[in-house]
Amino acid sequence: MRQRPSRGAAPRSSCPVACALDVAGDRWTLLVVRDLLRGRRTYGELAAAPEKIPTNILADRLRRLEEGGMVRADLYQKRPARYAYSLTEKGLGLKEVLTALARWGTRNLPGTRVFPEFRRA
Amino acid sequence: MRQRPSRGAAPRSSCPVACALDVAGDRWTLLVVRDLLRGRRTYGELAAAPEKIPTNILADRLRRLEEGGMVRADLYQKRPARYAYSLTEKGLGLKEVLTALARWGTRNLPGTRVFPEFRRA
Repeated sequence: MRQRPSRGAAPRSSCPVACALDVAGDRWTLLVVRDLLRGRRTYGELAAAPEKIPTNILADRLRRLEEGGMVRADLYQKRPARYAYSLTEKGLGLKEVLTALARWGTRNLPGTRVFPEFRRA
Repeated sequence: MRQRPSRGAAPRSSCPVACALDVAGDRWTLLVVRDLLRGRRTYGELAAAPEKIPTNILADRLRRLEEGGMVRADLYQKRPARYAYSLTEKGLGLKEVLTALARWGTRNLPGTRVFPEFRRA
């Protein structure tokens, strides 16, 4: 069962929350964005997330984020082809969503703690 | 394929973002929260969302939100049993996440517009 709409599917409504969830609202997409925000760049670095993201899901989410204009992939090695991933301005805009999620999680879900990279000095 | 962990599953990590997405991070859960925020109370009102949420998914998400302490169900009619749903303080805390999603969506996804209930005067 696909949990995301296929490319070019009609939006469910014109609500910006619904549309935002369509492009970035599953259990994994925003974790990929989180890891790009904390400086992970390569497929290997992203695959090493503590949540043990399945590699097929990582590849799928990176592709969708790239198609949606949130992530840019730059070839940094030709043989074999290797890409460095980074957030576009549109992707960087999701930081506010992640900040809100992290704040809510820290307040409401016992035992959670933000990664050191995100802690304020 | 289940897209959410079963009740009591071990958290994927101690990251508050990952844990928040575990409890509220699919395409539908936050839309149910959005509709509770804009005053929808009954199952029928929630089922009437413009995104046409499948009723089995609505029932499942309400149950999970209730189990997670984000939603309260109050019996308001006995035969047949009918419940009025509302957000707890924990559930109300998700408003900041929805606000961030709505702001990002409005800025980045052409054609989206927030519901009248959420527009500032």
